[in-house]
Amino acid sequence: MPMNDQDIKRFSGVIPPVIIPLKGDRSLDREAFEKSINRMIDGGVTGLFFLGSSGEVVFLTDEQRLEVLETAIEIVKGRVPVLVGVIDMETMRVIEQAKRISDLPIDALVATAPFYALGGPHENERHFRQIREHTDLPLFAYDLPVSVHTKLDPEMLLRLGKDGVIQGVKDSSGDDVQFRWLVLENEDAGHPLQLLTGHEVVVDGALLGGADGSVPGLANIDPHAYVEQWNAAQAGDWKKVSKIQDHLARLMMMTRKVTATVGFGAGVGAFKTALWQMGVFNTNQMREPVQALQGEDVRSIVHVLRAEGMVPTDSMINFDWDC
Amino acid sequence: MPMNDQDIKRFSGVIPPVIIPLKGDRSLDREAFEKSINRMIDGGVTGLFFLGSSGEVVFLTDEQRLEVLETAIEIVKGRVPVLVGVIDMETMRVIEQAKRISDLPIDALVATAPFYALGGPHENERHFRQIREHTDLPLFAYDLPVSVHTKLDPEMLLRLGKDGVIQGVKDSSGDDVQFRWLVLENEDAGHPLQLLTGHEVVVDGALLGGADGSVPGLANIDPHAYVEQWNAAQAGDWKKVSKIQDHLARLMMMTRKVTATVGFGAGVGAFKTALWQMGVFNTNQMREPVQALQGEDVRSIVHVLRAEGMVPTDSMINFDWDC
Amino acid sequence: MPMNDQDIKRFSGVIPPVIIPLKGDRSLDREAFEKSINRMIDGGVTGLFFLGSSGEVVFLTDEQRLEVLETAIEIVKGRVPVLVGVIDMETMRVIEQAKRISDLPIDALVATAPFYALGGPHENERHFRQIREHTDLPLFAYDLPVSVHTKLDPEMLLRLGKDGVIQGVKDSSGDDVQFRWLVLENEDAGHPLQLLTGHEVVVDGALLGGADGSVPGLANIDPHAYVEQWNAAQAGDWKKVSKIQDHLARLMMMTRKVTATVGFGAGVGAFKTALWQMGVFNTNQMREPVQALQGEDVRSIVHVLRAEGMVPTDSMINFDWDC
Amino acid sequence: MPMNDQDIKRFSGVIPPVIIPLKGDRSLDREAFEKSINRMIDGGVTGLFFLGSSGEVVFLTDEQRLEVLETAIEIVKGRVPVLVGVIDMETMRVIEQAKRISDLPIDALVATAPFYALGGPHENERHFRQIREHTDLPLFAYDLPVSVHTKLDPEMLLRLGKDGVIQGVKDSSGDDVQFRWLVLENEDAGHPLQLLTGHEVVVDGALLGGADGSVPGLANIDPHAYVEQWNAAQAGDWKKVSKIQDHLARLMMMTRKVTATVGFGAGVGAFKTALWQMGVFNTNQMREPVQALQGEDVRSIVHVLRAEGMVPTDSMINFDWDC
Repeated sequence: MPMNDQDIKRFSGVIPPVIIPLKGDRSLDREAFEKSINRMIDGGVTGLFFLGSSGEVVFLTDEQRLEVLETAIEIVKGRVPVLVGVIDMETMRVIEQAKRISDLPIDALVATAPFYALGGPHENERHFRQIREHTDLPLFAYDLPVSVHTKLDPEMLLRLGKDGVIQGVKDSSGDDVQFRWLVLENEDAGHPLQLLTGHEVVVDGALLGGADGSVPGLANIDPHAYVEQWNAAQAGDWKKVSKIQDHLARLMMMTRKVTATVGFGAGVGAFKTALWQMGVFNTNQMREPVQALQGEDVRSIVHVLRAEGMVPTDSMINFDWDC
Repeated sequence: MPMNDQDIKRFSGVIPPVIIPLKGDRSLDREAFEKSINRMIDGGVTGLFFLGSSGEVVFLTDEQRLEVLETAIEIVKGRVPVLVGVIDMETMRVIEQAKRISDLPIDALVATAPFYALGGPHENERHFRQIREHTDLPLFAYDLPVSVHTKLDPEMLLRLGKDGVIQGVKDSSGDDVQFRWLVLENEDAGHPLQLLTGHEVVVDGALLGGADGSVPGLANIDPHAYVEQWNAAQAGDWKKVSKIQDHLARLMMMTRKVTATVGFGAGVGAFKTALWQMGVFNTNQMREPVQALQGEDVRSIVHVLRAEGMVPTDSMINFDWDC
Repeated sequence: MPMNDQDIKRFSGVIPPVIIPLKGDRSLDREAFEKSINRMIDGGVTGLFFLGSSGEVVFLTDEQRLEVLETAIEIVKGRVPVLVGVIDMETMRVIEQAKRISDLPIDALVATAPFYALGGPHENERHFRQIREHTDLPLFAYDLPVSVHTKLDPEMLLRLGKDGVIQGVKDSSGDDVQFRWLVLENEDAGHPLQLLTGHEVVVDGALLGGADGSVPGLANIDPHAYVEQWNAAQAGDWKKVSKIQDHLARLMMMTRKVTATVGFGAGVGAFKTALWQMGVFNTNQMREPVQALQGEDVRSIVHVLRAEGMVPTDSMINFDWDC
Repeated sequence: MPMNDQDIKRFSGVIPPVIIPLKGDRSLDREAFEKSINRMIDGGVTGLFFLGSSGEVVFLTDEQRLEVLETAIEIVKGRVPVLVGVIDMETMRVIEQAKRISDLPIDALVATAPFYALGGPHENERHFRQIREHTDLPLFAYDLPVSVHTKLDPEMLLRLGKDGVIQGVKDSSGDDVQFRWLVLENEDAGHPLQLLTGHEVVVDGALLGGADGSVPGLANIDPHAYVEQWNAAQAGDWKKVSKIQDHLARLMMMTRKVTATVGFGAGVGAFKTALWQMGVFNTNQMREPVQALQGEDVRSIVHVLRAEGMVPTDSMINFDWDC
C-alpha cells in the first residue's frame, strides 16, 4: 500500500494544475514560472499539479517535459507536494513516462485512461493495475472524458482504491452525479480515495457534497480566492463559499468570450492572456500548433479581469509582448 | 408580458415532474394517481409538472395526454400551480399541443427545443418566439439535450427572458457550469427568469449557487425530503441541505442497479417500481414499447428503499401485481 | 405475411422522398406540388415517399400531414406506389399516425425507431412488432440515427424481416459497413427485406454492393439522372453508373455551400432553392421555425446548378418570390 | 515539393497496415513477422504501412517502435514502399517521432490530426504545415476520427495538397460522402493527392468512385483477394470487384462476433486470432493492457475462416499457444 494516512491528508485543499509561461520563441520562461509558482504557494495552495492538460503535457516532447518538471521542482523546493501527470496513449508508454521521472523528488503521479485505441472497461482497469506494478508513488486516476473519450466507472475507481492501486481521483468529467455517488461510496468504504474536483466553476457544490479538494485551472489566476473558499468550507461558512464561487464563476467567463479558436487555445489561451495582462506572465504565447490570442480576444479578457478586480479598472491593455 | 411578480414567485421551491401510475392493462390508474398527487401536495411541494418526460408525454397519444391532464387538474383542484409539457417535434406541432389545452385551468407551459430535424441557434430562438405568439401563459424552456440533442444557449435564454418570451427554465442539461453562469447573468438582468434545476442528485449545489427551485423526478418517491431540503436552504442551514441530498443521492442509486434495460425504462421504470413497492402505485407497469421491471431488478430497488428507510427493513417484496 | 413477391418487386429502383413546395404564406403550393410530382414520375421514378424527413413530416400538424398526403394521392393517381412516413416519438403515437391514414390508398408505411425517450434494443424491436399488430400494409424500417439517435441493429432488422414484421429498410444511417453486411445476410435468408439506401452521394457503391434501390432526396432535383443510373446498374454498365454518380455528387455540393444555417434548413433549404431557381417551385419557403435561404446562399446554389447543367449558364438568379 | 509523379504512382493499389505478431511474453515475434510480411508481398501488395493504428503504434514505447520498424525494413528489403505512422498527440511530439526515424530508408510518413487537447481547424492545418517544415518525405494525412475525434476537412486537405504540404490521405473516417467530394475536387485540382480508403468493407464502392487505392487491415488476412480486386478494378471488371468484396465483407464479420471486449481488442484481436489459426502467427497475443481473445471468441472466428475458405473446413482449432 503506497500511501499512509498522513500522505492522504496532504492531498486535499487546493491543488492548481500549473499553467506554463513561455517566451515569445515558445521556450520556457523561467522567471515568469517562478513568479507564478511563488504567487500560488504564497496564496496558500496545498499542492501543485505539473504536466497536466492545462500544463501543456501533450504538447511537450519528453525532453521538454523533463525541463518543465525539473525547473518546477527547483522552484517549489518542497514547499508543497508536487503531483505530476504521466499522460500518454497506452499503458506501456505511461509506465515509460513514470520511469523517466522516477529519480525526481515528486509526491504523486496522475494518469488518465488509455486513449486513441478504443478499449473497454477491462482494459481501463488493467491499465491502472499495470501502472501500479511499476511505481511506488501515490497514483491519481485522472477522469477527463473530454480528452480521452472514456468516463471512468465509479465502481472501478472504488475497487482500485480499496486494492491500493490508486490513492485518489482528479475528476474533470463534469459528471456531478457520478462524483456524488463516488463520494458517498468512498465514505462507506473507509475513504480509500482522495477525491478532488476539477469542475472549477462549481467547486462550492462539490465541497458541500464532500469533495476532499479541488484542482482548478482558474486557481492560477486567483489562487487566493480558491484558498479562502477552501478555508470557509472547512469553517462551515457556506454562504461565503458560494459568494467566492460567484466571483470565480464570473472570472471563468473570460474563456467563453474567445472568438479566435476553441478548446485548449480558448481555455488555457485565456488563462495565459489573463496572467500576462496581470503582469505575472511576460507573454500569452502558446505551444505549437496553437496560436496566442490577440486583439479583441485580449480586450474582452481584460474587461472580465477589470470587472472582477483582478486588474485596475483603468489598466492599460497590452497587445504585444515586451520580450 | 404574461407573468407578473406574484406569478414568478409561485414557480419556485419543489415542483416534481409527475410519474403516471398505470393499471396492468396500461390504462391510467386514477386511484393511484390521486394517492400519489395528494402525497406530494401534502408533503409540501410548491407545484406539479405534468406531461413532462418522466410523465410519459412522448408515449401518449394526444387523447391520452388530455385524459392524464384533465384527471390531474381534477385531483389537484388548484391546491398548487400546474405546469404542463407541450412536447412535440417542431414549432407548429408544439403550438397545436398548446392550443389543444388552452381551455384548461393550467398555470404554465413547458417546451423543449425542436428535435428530430436538425437545426441551429436561429431556429431554436424563433421556435420559442413563435410559441409565445400563440399563448398567453407563462412559458418555461426545458433544456434537455439528452432527449432533444440540443443544449439551449444561456445567452439566448436570457434574451428570451428579457423580451418576455419565456418566464423560466427547467434545466435538465446536467451542465452545471452553464447553469451557474445563467444564474449570475439572470441576477444581473433583474431576474427575468425563474431557474429550476432538474439535476436531482446535486440540488444542494444548485440551491447554494442560486437556483430558484428544483424539478426532481425523485420527489415522486420522497417529496418530504426535497421540501425539507428547500426549507433548510431558505433558512441557510447548508449542512442540513447537504445531508438530505446525501439521502436522496443514495435513493437515486436505485436507477443504476437496473440490468434489464437502459434509459427511460431503467430510470422511470425504477421510480414506478419504488412507488409500487411503497404501496403508492398498484403496479410498475410502463407504456409501450417499454416493459415493467421484474425479478432481480425489483429486488435491488427494494434493497435501496430499505437502506434509505422508505420501506420497512423486513418488508415483503412484491413480484406480481395484485390488480 | 403482408407482402407477396410481386409487392416486393414494386419497392425497388428510385423512390424519392418528396420535397414539399410552399407558397410565401407557408401554405401548400398545390400547383408546384403537381409539377414536381409529375416531373419525377415522367422521369421514371418507381415510387414516391411522402411525409419523410425531407417531406417536412415533423414540421406539420396532423391536419397538415393529411392535407399533404391527400393532395399527393390525388396527383399521383396510382401511377407509382406511394410510401408514407408515420413518424412520431413513440409506439402508440406512430400507430395513431398509421390509423389516421388507414382509409387512404397507400402502398407502404415507413417508421423510425422510437425517439426522445431513450431506450434500448428491446424497446426498438418491440416497437416495430407492435406497429405490425396494428396495420396490414408493408412496413419499412427507417434507419436515421442523425434524427433519432439510435442505429438500428442489422441482426434485429433481419429477424424482423424473417418474421414478416417489416418488409424493407430505408437506410439513411451512412453506415455502409453495416448496410453491406445486411445485404449479404438478407441474401442468405432468402431476401425477406427490400433494402433501399438513402445515402444519395454514393448510390453507385450501394447498387454495386447489392442494394435493391435508393431513396435519394436529390432525386427531386434530378430524377432523370437517378433513373438512368438505376437502369445502367441493371444493365451492368458500372462505368456509367459511377459517372452519373459523379454528376449527382457534384450537384449535392449545393448543400455544403450554405452559410445561413445548418441541418434541415441547409439541406432541404438548398433543395427547395434549387427547385425554385429551376422553375419547378414558385418559392423556396420553409416551415416554421426554419427560414428560406437568401442572397449569397441562393447565388452559390445557382452556381452549382449551372455547372451541372440544371439551369442555363446565363440564367437569371431570382432573389424574391413572384407569388 | 517533396513528391514527383513517379513517387505518386507508387502510392496506389493495396497498402496493408501491418499487424504485429507477438510471442507469449508480448515481445516481437520476428519469425512470424517475416512470414506475414513475405506473404503479403508475395500476394502482390503495392506497399506496407507500419506503425499505424492496427500496427499497435500507440501501445509501443519509442524504443519498441524503433525495433518494429528496423525489423520491418530489414524484412521488406526495399521490395515495396514502406509508409510509417508518426502518431503522437501534438505537433512537436509528431515531429520528434519523425526525427527519430529520419535516418531510416522509408518512403512516406503518416500523421493524424492532433488529439487529446481539443483544437479547431486552424490548429489542424498549422499542425500539418509544421510537420512539413521538419521533413522531406512524402506525408499522408490520416483521417481517423474514431481515434482522434476530429474529422479532417476535405477543403483543408485539398489546400494542403495543392501547397505540397501533404501528398495523400488515408481515409478511415467512414464518411463516404466527404471522400467522394474529395476525390472529385482532387481531380479538378490536377490530382495533387493520392487518396487511399481504409474503409475495408466497401473498397469496391471507393474504387468505383475513383479512390487511388486502399489501406485495409483485413489485407493482412487475405492479401491475395484485395490485390485481385485491385487488378479487376483496373481492368474495369466491376462485377468481379464486387464479388471479391462480398467475400472480404463476410471475412470481416469475424470482428463483430467478439464478446470479450470492444474496439481495438475485438478488431485487431480478431485479426491476430485469424492469423494464428491460419498458421501465419504463433500466438494471438496483444500488447498491454489488451488481452488475447480466448475460447468461444476463437471458435467463432474459426467458423468465419472456414466458411470463407481461409482454413480447411475440418481444421483443428487452437486454444493455446505452442510457444
